[in-house]
Amino acid sequence: MTTATPTADTTDVPAYCLGLAQAARAAGLAMATVPGSVRDDALRYTADALVAATETLKAANAKDLEAGRANGLASAMLDRLELNDDRIANMADAVRQIADQPDPVGRILEGRVLSNGIRLEKVRVPLGTVLIIFESRPNVTCDAAALCLKSGNAAILRGGKEALHSNAAIAACVKQGLDKAGVPADAVQLVGTTDRSAVGELLKLDELIDVCIPRGGESLIRAVVEQSRIPVIKHYTGNCHVYVDATADHDMAVDICLNAKTQRTGVCNATETILFHQDCVANGLVRKVGEALLAKGVELRADTRSMSELPDSRPAEESDWSAEYLDMIVALRVVDSLDDAVAHINRYGSKHTDAILTTDLAASNRFVQSVDTANVMVNCSTRFSDGQQYGLGAEIGISTDKLHSRGPMGAEDLTTYKWVARGDGQVRG
Amino acid sequence: MTTATPTADTTDVPAYCLGLAQAARAAGLAMATVPGSVRDDALRYTADALVAATETLKAANAKDLEAGRANGLASAMLDRLELNDDRIANMADAVRQIADQPDPVGRILEGRVLSNGIRLEKVRVPLGTVLIIFESRPNVTCDAAALCLKSGNAAILRGGKEALHSNAAIAACVKQGLDKAGVPADAVQLVGTTDRSAVGELLKLDELIDVCIPRGGESLIRAVVEQSRIPVIKHYTGNCHVYVDATADHDMAVDICLNAKTQRTGVCNATETILFHQDCVANGLVRKVGEALLAKGVELRADTRSMSELPDSRPAEESDWSAEYLDMIVALRVVDSLDDAVAHINRYGSKHTDAILTTDLAASNRFVQSVDTANVMVNCSTRFSDGQQYGLGAEIGISTDKLHSRGPMGAEDLTTYKWVARGDGQVRG
Repeated sequence: MTTATPTADTTDVPAYCLGLAQAARAAGLAMATVPGSVRDDALRYTADALVAATETLKAANAKDLEAGRANGLASAMLDRLELNDDRIANMADAVRQIADQPDPVGRILEGRVLSNGIRLEKVRVPLGTVLIIFESRPNVTCDAAALCLKSGNAAILRGGKEALHSNAAIAACVKQGLDKAGVPADAVQLVGTTDRSAVGELLKLDELIDVCIPRGGESLIRAVVEQSRIPVIKHYTGNCHVYVDATADHDMAVDICLNAKTQRTGVCNATETILFHQDCVANGLVRKVGEALLAKGVELRADTRSMSELPDSRPAEESDWSAEYLDMIVALRVVDSLDDAVAHINRYGSKHTDAILTTDLAASNRFVQSVDTANVMVNCSTRFSDGQQYGLGAEIGISTDKLHSRGPMGAEDLTTYKWVARGDGQVRG
Repeated sequence: MTTATPTADTTDVPAYCLGLAQAARAAGLAMATVPGSVRDDALRYTADALVAATETLKAANAKDLEAGRANGLASAMLDRLELNDDRIANMADAVRQIADQPDPVGRILEGRVLSNGIRLEKVRVPLGTVLIIFESRPNVTCDAAALCLKSGNAAILRGGKEALHSNAAIAACVKQGLDKAGVPADAVQLVGTTDRSAVGELLKLDELIDVCIPRGGESLIRAVVEQSRIPVIKHYTGNCHVYVDATADHDMAVDICLNAKTQRTGVCNATETILFHQDCVANGLVRKVGEALLAKGVELRADTRSMSELPDSRPAEESDWSAEYLDMIVALRVVDSLDDAVAHINRYGSKHTDAILTTDLAASNRFVQSVDTANVMVNCSTRFSDGQQYGLGAEIGISTDKLHSRGPMGAEDLTTYKWVARGDGQVRG
């Protein structure tokens, strides 16, 4: 892994970025013939190197933490930034788990013999060069490098400046892994300048970079989309819903609403709005769910009909329907019908994860078909939309896009396919 | 199908485009619950309507042809624009064939029961709203509408102004088909203004339109990519290669090179450059293939080594390696090795279709793995990269992108998937 080769001049940012991307493109093409077992070796050697370098990583991380404190970083940010013995061991374990997954490259997606005798196959191949832009967590450097390597891609990683020293130390471990396994060193490159214009320069290089995956807040992602000529896979934070149908089981509704809202609030698959069928006013479910949430310390922002059942709530405003609180706050609304619930979600939702709680089979089917979202949950918590939970292995994020990949993305989502047609002299008549 | 409802005001282009896209988004959401059999009915009724309207279509087309002649359109363009009895019958047949294909919607791509009992499925669903921007051929209006309907999408179609009357007459037939089958009328909309700013306005509406597919020349596609906030699937014209390896069968090499270059020159999968292994100089194959091409009337643009065998060729310039002639011209180059052939293709090619002719198994495998292209051909003509040839049915184009779809795109490529998780009360611990 090259962070900045001794001769690389980072002062001319456009030239530096072009050189980086050209090296990545060349490495990506070379990776197409590196066997999966060699890529996995590189991952295992990287994991070993991370563990062996624990003290070095902590020392580098201490510099970032010190700078962060001096710059007044919030304590939540400092917590994300911190590397300790456990986190380093977990990072190495995550890399080993990725190595243990089956190779996504080479899988034949379909195939047939055409009537003219040509044998046609559609085969998974690496995308080529993947640009990942992320914020403060240093473990993303390691996860992203590992998933790109697993899928046979070259990676260009642009981390946050808060994690500068930590990222460089992690990159050095990846470099050891690549070198020991004999994988091209340029297959993983960390952008060696914190100059902000580097991102814009890289996003112009659509001939050299195949896809950009920004990981971070909505403003980061929007800025990337605005500037990029490269296809972007977007991972916006989720505005997830639970719709409690007229026939929902009461105990299940309480359990799932509590879990979806409070089990972990700062994550994209936490629920932000609960919709109730109007029958849930008369059958007491609005009150029951609302009081359970209040008892857990959740602030309720309620429409008029749900407020009449829950006087301790605040009136919801229009902006609450679009809000991603990532906090102990939930919006509540009573709707006339399942179709109105779907219309609400399709209008205000972020196409991430939306659930229905019902005992009515036809209602569950209609909801599953009608709601325009990456993950539809029936009678289970929105918190399950996750690559590990789905059995996809480590994830690079949860796509809220519809093209290429939707929902949790694993190593396979960093591949494309090629059509291979094998003949014995066929010409077209 | 609504071209411009009587009340639609096309003078305020931004408002008109917003209204069109909002109607399409609503129709697209409604389409999610329209069964495949009803969508197929709409297609068959459309085919009937096209045949019944043959005289009306020809009369509308005559106006476009007259305007085209008055505006000095080239004869090739006028030919593309023309609708006659045969072409109308073919257009209707193509729609019926699309109706006869299996439904791409609802197919389960994978699924499993998680250890917590949740049943997880990854299911094909329509993309939603598809914007197709195209140039003069009026049959594209019909094909594009049919493929979008087949895949359960709403379509916004923006045709070339040369085909204004023809497109409106075709749109009227699609409207009859939708109405008779009971499919939402806004599911297919033709942009009812020729104002050039309409494209730019539509390309801003990333909240309402899911994907844009431009079909036409490179300048059209580049302009769309520059302006769009919507994901674009690009179909650049192809710069396709045949690489003749040292061990290629001589007769096969002559047949395939002739077919790949001359069977039809104006199409994206015609070959533009032939590369020869250096042994093909000594074994006479450069001369044999070159002379066969000359005898067919093909102009040769040759590098120094191939020119020494073919004195009737012109010297190739650097720009010839990137040229997409779409004409009876071919570039010839002798390379030192298979790896040099691959390097040439990966540098100058357009990632469309590239072939190797060889009897050496290891060489064929290395080429298949190393060449960065959508379609790799072994011992057959580049002309086979085509949705119909591959058995995908009608195609919306051949993607030179790597994300979402690569190579020939059929109705299935106009779908995405959603994850559906069915539980019985699971919460995350």
